[in-house]
Amino acid sequence: MALLGAIEGGGTKFVLAVCDEDMKIVDRQSIPTEDGEKTLDAVIAYFDQFEDIKAVGIAMFGPIDINPESKTYGRVLDTPKRGWSGYDFMGRMKAWRDIPYYWTTDVNGAAWAEYKTGAVKENQSMVYLTIGTGVGAGIINRGHFLAGYGHPEAGHIMIQKHPKDDYQGHCPFHQDHCLEGLASGPAMAERWDMTAKELPDDHIAWEIEADYLAQAAVDFTVILRPDKIIFGGGVPHRENLLPMVRKAFADKFRNYLATPDFEDYIVPVSTGDNAGIIGCFYLAQAKLAEEE
Amino acid sequence: MALLGAIEGGGTKFVLAVCDEDMKIVDRQSIPTEDGEKTLDAVIAYFDQFEDIKAVGIAMFGPIDINPESKTYGRVLDTPKRGWSGYDFMGRMKAWRDIPYYWTTDVNGAAWAEYKTGAVKENQSMVYLTIGTGVGAGIINRGHFLAGYGHPEAGHIMIQKHPKDDYQGHCPFHQDHCLEGLASGPAMAERWDMTAKELPDDHIAWEIEADYLAQAAVDFTVILRPDKIIFGGGVPHRENLLPMVRKAFADKFRNYLATPDFEDYIVPVSTGDNAGIIGCFYLAQAKLAEEE
Ligand SMILES: Nc1ncnc2c1ncn2[C@@H]1O[C@H](COP(=O)(O)OP(=O)(O)O)[C@@H](O)[C@H]1O
Ligand SMILES: Nc1ncnc2c1ncn2[C@@H]1O[C@H](COP(=O)(O)OP(=O)(O)O)[C@@H](O)[C@H]1O
Ligand SMILES: [Zn+2]
Ligand SMILES: [Zn+2]
Repeated sequence: MALLGAIEGGGTKFVLAVCDEDMKIVDRQSIPTEDGEKTLDAVIAYFDQFEDIKAVGIAMFGPIDINPESKTYGRVLDTPKRGWSGYDFMGRMKAWRDIPYYWTTDVNGAAWAEYKTGAVKENQSMVYLTIGTGVGAGIINRGHFLAGYGHPEAGHIMIQKHPKDDYQGHCPFHQDHCLEGLASGPAMAERWDMTAKELPDDHIAWEIEADYLAQAAVDFTVILRPDKIIFGGGVPHRENLLPMVRKAFADKFRNYLATPDFEDYIVPVSTGDNAGIIGCFYLAQAKLAEEE
Repeated sequence: MALLGAIEGGGTKFVLAVCDEDMKIVDRQSIPTEDGEKTLDAVIAYFDQFEDIKAVGIAMFGPIDINPESKTYGRVLDTPKRGWSGYDFMGRMKAWRDIPYYWTTDVNGAAWAEYKTGAVKENQSMVYLTIGTGVGAGIINRGHFLAGYGHPEAGHIMIQKHPKDDYQGHCPFHQDHCLEGLASGPAMAERWDMTAKELPDDHIAWEIEADYLAQAAVDFTVILRPDKIIFGGGVPHRENLLPMVRKAFADKFRNYLATPDFEDYIVPVSTGDNAGIIGCFYLAQAKLAEEE
């Protein structure tokens, strides 16, 4: 039976999975993230169990080199994460089995799952913004991942500080000047001495959080003109957040340009917790089709 | 002799031009912008002089409908500019002569000239930011104009106000919250009671202006990862501005991601005042090649 593989590489755990031709998950396992070499030992031991894997989609925490023309394509770039800087991820996989691999970022993997299974049409544009331990974005422009000199790291756009916020910020690079520094889960936890999950619905934290996410939505709208902005990650699990983001977006954007109805424009994820591996399966399938 | 036409449609004037097969300008004329119908009468009277025009590139002030699948493709969208809302620009041109037309925004036209003649390689990504009466951006992602639900209007990204700036802002939609509201020529003139052109080099205006443009450069960098950010329009004629933008960019960005050397990354236009029509000629040529 022909199988496809998925590797969702996160900072704390790797999720490995295999599906059949109908995209049905056959097996799934989570392993702790260690250094590059040890983690890949475990990845390969896992996939060794399956004879007939035709292609693998890999959605890996960044920064990674995704430029096929670069000499370091397929490697992990400089990262504070121990044992990963420069690690030749794709080289190791290719040495294991020389099959097609789709290599992209973790947020792109999840974005692709939304793109294929959510309410986005072929050839439309989409931003998938995840707000969890970090803030990241997968951007799809008319069916293709946006990328240039490298992949986007759109969690670090500049943000206007809310007048009621005197937090010093959580980004090691940009302190309280960027979205990740002001709006990530750890930023909320440090600012309020309570995790995002614990903060009550009527806490001012949510007004401030919605303000920041709405600013991001304005920037994405005027630069990218997406058909949808999808909010993923742990923090948007809070159900009252997106309605507040829509309202703050309306206040800031002032109907400056045509957009889809806000209810269809600023939306939660639809794929849920398996998004990363589902995206990888679709990307593996696409890569396979392309090479055949 | 085969000719190509160019229409650069601006808010105060239209520049019309014709070039030969070697992209040599054969004729060029400027006409004042009136309402849609009257302006197009003059446009057509101009091109009627030339028998052998094979294709025309049109770079038009926005908002315009550039989505080929839309029912209003080729029209001007809602605009405060009198006699233009809903005007069927492309319909009028097609009725005149049914030849290939490339239809895009004014900033995209100028961006394309930079892309074809400046130091940007095929398949690279680029942002062309113009700071004049308005602020606008033409964005080229790996050889294609970025567009989605509509074309970008990236002059309206959200900006952090400089601590020494108490100006109330010039954008009718976003006041002092967006780049155009804080950094356009008219914003500078109103804030300082002096035009940008008149402001002395050592005026604090330039420190503040550089701060805002550097924030824009950070946002473009993390979202788009361009190979170049090109600054056009009247305000960057000031020669000490871009070095200040590079410095402010370094302070804000903190080397968070790899970029080209700042000297090659944050750069002035190279095409000069004919950029708009040169871009149109190249776009006309591309459209012609595509249809043949
Ligand atoms: N229901 C909830 N409401 C608000 N915040 C939540 C909720 N559930 C989880 N979170 C927050 O989400 C963050 C974790 O996000 P997640 O995307 O799961 O993490 P990671 O980025 O490590 O994968 C934590 O800050 C947590 O407090
Ligand atoms: N050398 C200069 N230094 C600073 N500002 C300048 C200079 N030359 C022109 N400007 C400013 O550029 C603006 C006009 O920009 P321009 O792009 O020519 O206009 P438009 O957008 O109407 O085409 C004015 O605000 C003017 O003060
Ligand atoms: Zn940051
Ligand atoms: Zn604005």
